[in-house]
Amino acid sequence: MGEFLKVVKYDEALQKIKEHFPAGQVEEIPLLEAFNRVSTEVVLSPEPLPAFDRTTVDGYAVDAEDTFGCSESLPAFLDLKGEVKMGEKADLTLQPGECCWIPTGGMLPEGSNAAVMVEYTEKLGEDTVLIYRPAGPWENIMQKGEDIAEGQEVFPPGKKMRPQDIGLLASLGITSLKVFKPYNIGIISTGDEIIAVGDKPQIGQIRDVNSYALATAVQACGSNPRIYPIVQDQFQVLKKAVTRGLEENDVLLMSGGSSVGIKDVTIDVLLSFPDSELLFHGIAVKPGKPTLAVRIGKKLVIGLPGHPVSALMMYYIVCAPALRFTPAVEIEAFLSMNLPSQAGRDDFVPVKLVYDNGRRIAIPLLGKSGLMSILSLADAYIHIEYEQQGIKQDDMVTAYIF
Amino acid sequence: MGEFLKVVKYDEALQKIKEHFPAGQVEEIPLLEAFNRVSTEVVLSPEPLPAFDRTTVDGYAVDAEDTFGCSESLPAFLDLKGEVKMGEKADLTLQPGECCWIPTGGMLPEGSNAAVMVEYTEKLGEDTVLIYRPAGPWENIMQKGEDIAEGQEVFPPGKKMRPQDIGLLASLGITSLKVFKPYNIGIISTGDEIIAVGDKPQIGQIRDVNSYALATAVQACGSNPRIYPIVQDQFQVLKKAVTRGLEENDVLLMSGGSSVGIKDVTIDVLLSFPDSELLFHGIAVKPGKPTLAVRIGKKLVIGLPGHPVSALMMYYIVCAPALRFTPAVEIEAFLSMNLPSQAGRDDFVPVKLVYDNGRRIAIPLLGKSGLMSILSLADAYIHIEYEQQGIKQDDMVTAYIF
Repeated sequence: MGEFLKVVKYDEALQKIKEHFPAGQVEEIPLLEAFNRVSTEVVLSPEPLPAFDRTTVDGYAVDAEDTFGCSESLPAFLDLKGEVKMGEKADLTLQPGECCWIPTGGMLPEGSNAAVMVEYTEKLGEDTVLIYRPAGPWENIMQKGEDIAEGQEVFPPGKKMRPQDIGLLASLGITSLKVFKPYNIGIISTGDEIIAVGDKPQIGQIRDVNSYALATAVQACGSNPRIYPIVQDQFQVLKKAVTRGLEENDVLLMSGGSSVGIKDVTIDVLLSFPDSELLFHGIAVKPGKPTLAVRIGKKLVIGLPGHPVSALMMYYIVCAPALRFTPAVEIEAFLSMNLPSQAGRDDFVPVKLVYDNGRRIAIPLLGKSGLMSILSLADAYIHIEYEQQGIKQDDMVTAYIF
Repeated sequence: MGEFLKVVKYDEALQKIKEHFPAGQVEEIPLLEAFNRVSTEVVLSPEPLPAFDRTTVDGYAVDAEDTFGCSESLPAFLDLKGEVKMGEKADLTLQPGECCWIPTGGMLPEGSNAAVMVEYTEKLGEDTVLIYRPAGPWENIMQKGEDIAEGQEVFPPGKKMRPQDIGLLASLGITSLKVFKPYNIGIISTGDEIIAVGDKPQIGQIRDVNSYALATAVQACGSNPRIYPIVQDQFQVLKKAVTRGLEENDVLLMSGGSSVGIKDVTIDVLLSFPDSELLFHGIAVKPGKPTLAVRIGKKLVIGLPGHPVSALMMYYIVCAPALRFTPAVEIEAFLSMNLPSQAGRDDFVPVKLVYDNGRRIAIPLLGKSGLMSILSLADAYIHIEYEQQGIKQDDMVTAYIF
C-alpha cells in the first residue's frame, strides 16, 4: 500500500488531534452525581444567597445605634421584645431601645441591623437585656445576597465540581447540572506476540499491558474505556476489529501496530476505510515517535507505540490533552540536574518531585526508556521543547502531574 | 439529660476519631477496577521483568566485542545468520563474527550481548551486514529482571493506583489486587428549618446543603455515602433515624444538631444507646467548635455543625483524615499577608494558591466565615496551630489541597 511516513512536530500532532477530536457532548445530570464532573456552561445564580439578612451568632438583634458607647462598666439597657425562632419568619418589628433574642441563622427582624453575641449580654429579669459591648452596623449579620447575588455568575464553563462547589449550587437550589458526557474510547491491542495479562508468556510473548494502562488512563480523564480482544496483525482480522471499534466508540486507541516494521498493517487497514485521512504518521518526540492518527469519518483513531511505557507516555502527551475536560495539573519545580536534549524533537521526561529545604525539586528519572518501573516511580513529567537543547540544573520547569 | 460540654483540642479530637474509627476492611478486586484504589499489603513481584534479555531497538543482535573499533570509514563486517522473530523464542546461537536481525522487543539470542540500531548498519547482499558504530556490552538491551527483579517489592501498602501502576502490575501478570473496601457512611441532616434542596425555602428555612456537600466529600475520600431523609429535632424521630443509620453504615455523619442550643437533642439521642461513649463535645477550632463524636458499640457518630461551611470544613479536618486511605495532598506556599490567630485554638483558613514570579503564594480568603462562595474559591486550607498566635507574611505554610 502507498503508506509513507508523515512525521510531524509535537505541537502539530497535538493540534491535529484536538482539531479532529469528536466534539464533547453535553448531558444534564442530578447535582448529587456531579462530583468530579465538568460544567459546560456558565452557571448563574437564580436567587440571592442568603435570601434574607441573618445573624451569624446566638444573641440579640439590635439597632447598632442603641449600643454605641456601651461598655462593661456602662452597659446599654434594652427592652426585650420576644424572640425570632429558627426556621420562622421574623414578624416582629423593633422600635428604638428594643432588642429580641435571635439564634444563629435567624432572620433579622425589622428595625435591627446588628446582632450582639449572648456572651456580651446579660438578661435582667424578664424584660430587660444589658449589652456590654457596642455593635457596629451589620456586625454579625450576613446580608441578603452578600454570599452570591441574584444573577451573579457562580461558575464559568469548564469548572470541575468539588464538594464545596456542589454545596454552593445546592445552597442556590440548583439540583441538576449540564456537564460533559464521558467519551466512549475503544482500546485495541494488536500484535502476534501479545497475550492476555493473566496468561503466562512463552519466551518472546508479551502481556497486554496497554489495555490495562490505557483503560485506566481513560478513566482518569473522566471517560469510559472499552477494551476489545487482542488482534493479530492480519489485515482482515484487524479491519473487522476496527470496524466494530469505530461503530461503538467516539475514538479508538490502538497500540502495537504503529511502528515502521514489516508487520505494520494498521495504517493500511485504517486508510482502507472510506473518508479516511492520515493526519500524521510519526511524531518527533522522545519517547514514542511511532504514533499515528487517522480520521475516519467523524471519528478518530490514534495508533500508539506497542511498548507500554511509550504507549502510556504518548497517551499522556497527545491523547489526554484532547480527551480530558480540564487542563493537566501543573506544578513548578527546580530541575535537579542538567538535562541535555537533542534539538529537533520534543522530549518528555518523567520526574520525581521532592520538597527540600524550601524548594520543590524535579528529579529526572533517567535510565532505559522501556522501564515500566520508572513511570511508576514518577510523579509528573516535564517537557523539553523542540528548539531547546536541554534544560540547566536549577532552572525552573513546569511539571505536569500524572 | 446530663449532657455537659467536653471541649477538646484539635489534636485530641483527631486522635479520638482515628482511634475509634472502624478498621478498614480489605477486598480483592480485579486489577482493571483498581484505578484510584489503595493497596492494603506489600505487592511482591512474582517474576522478573523482563523475563528475558530483549532489545529496545530494531537492528542486529551482535557480540559487542565484534564491533569494537568500527566506524563510518571502517565498518565491521558480520555474517548474517537469519533473524529473531517477534513473539518467538530466539533458538539460534551466534558464533563470533555473526549477527542476526532482531526487532524491538525481540529476545536476544545466545552468543550476543548488544544490539546495533538499523540506522548504523548496512546490508551487503544476502549474508553480510556492515556495522558503522561500535556497541557497548548490553547496549540497547534490557536485561532479564532489570526493570523489576523476581521477589522485589513493587508497591508498599497504602499505594494509590494510577494508570502506570496498574500497567506495572499487569506487566508482572498480576490480575487482582487487595485494596481497602470503601466505608459506608450514613449522612443525616437534622433541624426543623432544613428543607430539601429542590424546595423553595420559606423565610427562615434553609436548604439541606450538607447532604450534598458531605456526600460528595465522602466520595472524594473513596467511600460510599448514603443520604437519609432530613430529620426533625425530636428525640423519638431522631432516635429512629440514628438506629437505622447505625445498622446500615460504618460511620454516621450528622449535621445540624450539635450546636449548644435549646433544640440540641442529638447528643441526648446518641447517649441513650447502650455502650455509647461521648468522645468529645466541642473542639477548640475555628470554624466549627460545635462538633461532637460519640462511639456507639463499634461504630462512630460524628456530629458536625449545621452551617454548611463549618460542616464541610470540619469534615475536611476531622473526618477526612480518618476516612481516606491516603494522606491529603500538601503543597508548600508563602503566605501573602500577616494572619493573626487567637492562641488557645486551632484555626483553619481557606486559601487561594497562585503562582507569581517564581513563588507559590497562599492568599487567605477571609471575610465572614459563613460565606459558601469562599470555600468554592479556595484551592486549599492552612492550619494555624494551637500555640501559634498567627503566621507572618512571607512565612512558608503547608496548604492542604481540597
